[in-house]
Amino acid sequence: VKPKELVERVQAGETAAIARMLTRVERGADGVHDQIAELYRAGGDTHVIGVTGAPGSGKSTLVAALAQAYRRRKATLGVVAVDPSSPYSGGSILGDRIRMHELGDDPGVFVRSMATRGALGGLARATVDAVTVLAAAGKDVVLIETVGVGQDEVEIAQASHSTLVVSVPGLGDEIQALKAGVLEIADVHVVNKSDRPGADKVVAELRDALRLSRRQTGWRVPVQAVSAERGTGVDDLVDVLDRHRGWLVESGALELRERDMAAARVRSILQDLVMTQVHDPTTDADLAATVEEVRARKIDPYHAARDLLRAASQGVDPTQEAL
Amino acid sequence: VKPKELVERVQAGETAAIARMLTRVERGADGVHDQIAELYRAGGDTHVIGVTGAPGSGKSTLVAALAQAYRRRKATLGVVAVDPSSPYSGGSILGDRIRMHELGDDPGVFVRSMATRGALGGLARATVDAVTVLAAAGKDVVLIETVGVGQDEVEIAQASHSTLVVSVPGLGDEIQALKAGVLEIADVHVVNKSDRPGADKVVAELRDALRLSRRQTGWRVPVQAVSAERGTGVDDLVDVLDRHRGWLVESGALELRERDMAAARVRSILQDLVMTQVHDPTTDADLAATVEEVRARKIDPYHAARDLLRAASQGVDPTQEAL
Repeated sequence: VKPKELVERVQAGETAAIARMLTRVERGADGVHDQIAELYRAGGDTHVIGVTGAPGSGKSTLVAALAQAYRRRKATLGVVAVDPSSPYSGGSILGDRIRMHELGDDPGVFVRSMATRGALGGLARATVDAVTVLAAAGKDVVLIETVGVGQDEVEIAQASHSTLVVSVPGLGDEIQALKAGVLEIADVHVVNKSDRPGADKVVAELRDALRLSRRQTGWRVPVQAVSAERGTGVDDLVDVLDRHRGWLVESGALELRERDMAAARVRSILQDLVMTQVHDPTTDADLAATVEEVRARKIDPYHAARDLLRAASQGVDPTQEAL
Repeated sequence: VKPKELVERVQAGETAAIARMLTRVERGADGVHDQIAELYRAGGDTHVIGVTGAPGSGKSTLVAALAQAYRRRKATLGVVAVDPSSPYSGGSILGDRIRMHELGDDPGVFVRSMATRGALGGLARATVDAVTVLAAAGKDVVLIETVGVGQDEVEIAQASHSTLVVSVPGLGDEIQALKAGVLEIADVHVVNKSDRPGADKVVAELRDALRLSRRQTGWRVPVQAVSAERGTGVDDLVDVLDRHRGWLVESGALELRERDMAAARVRSILQDLVMTQVHDPTTDADLAATVEEVRARKIDPYHAARDLLRAASQGVDPTQEAL
């Protein structure tokens, strides 16, 4: 398949072409960024929803329940589960984590668990590229499920129109969102396992915390109780998400949000661009010499970084695949 | 105090000067990178030890116990606790986490909990700068305690001579290091709370996992059981750390390790350099125009990043404070 043809088949929504393109994204295959660039320009009117929360909060079950609820409303979906591989070993430990068997036979849902075998920080970018692929393929909704909390989490929130933060009663610390520092990235708070003791208290505490929060955007962040396992509250959650999407469009916030998404994405690519040039001193004699001077304390890392930035920019050829 | 004088007072080991310099590092104060550059070149023969592990593994207690054990051997210490603030709110939630009161009156130990109020990713770099300050001040040992697991964790491992990974029985998943993907960054594994049921099993499982690990450096990674709270095994752990330091020196691995540390640090600064230029499109008209073109899908983020990298490098003046 020629690169151009694969792009066209993705845009036609062919499942096999989508799967193949995502494998190319994961592997950082030759020429894939030109394909993503083309798919990006083609665009797509997709509602991108990030789902985050502490381990044990039942995110996978919630994502599966949300996907089913969207399917009942005839929306087509892409689901991307982010799966961090070890930074040092090549393998992915949590690969079989997602359980979405019930959705497996529905051609209206495309499910993919992402893993990267490459550079640090590459996972968030690969995930965002996957969203571009699914949007260009015409999916109405893309759900991104993240694992854990950290830098990748923040990057994925920055790549979403709506960020769900999932809390759950009984994890010890009642407001996990507060502890993890993700209270303020939520557009919607979900308290999962609402049938458990303490769920009402978590809802009340989140509402209190939100009242004290500084964020002022005109959107009043709702707290929705659900039981993803039993299916209660999930349709209400879809209503809340539709309402958030509607608010983004009507208030003009969508354009601001998408500007922030563009800025975050450019920044992330830029960092990777720089990193690929500095990643491996064993393959670049000039870089190795600079690093050795820093090690020997002949120069300091700040001046070395400035020198390298100038050198890196001279190595960038705009007509070539630079990543 | 003039910048030059503060640098000299840090090098003389004055506690007040160290504290003041670390505040400048946290705040990203004007001219601080030139001061760090100077302190870096001055160097220091410090054993830098990173301590990482899952929440609940008792890292703070272990770090306090280690500090006391080193003090009994007359070593001077710096202790840096990494304290991630929320990426969006300015405040630090976990600020009062560390409990090292018993060390508070000992002038041979300098304890600092770090927080940054600035850019994403700035915490790891501020921590590494803090290590430079403490090394230049003549501390024999610097302990870095990290919170959680993620990108910052990896960066701090890359800034340490010896990385301790702490596990503990009874957190559900027995080998937390495996789950978190940090098995292979450990130079020493610690099983804390060794008096609890299941500790022996964790030790055995770690040893099994290490046998299967790919890392081959000539250093056989030990697994040390301790009870930080009761103080058992802590002196043995200091022996193990001294042995690792000795091995680094004698095998020549120290130079390789410090080369990797230098490369990681330059990379991190370089990323921040680029990021500061792309962070805030509202203050830069050219950047804002580019981001708006990406948002409107007139250009794609990959080509935009390449254009910006060229522009960024032209804006760097090597004689000026660029960060």
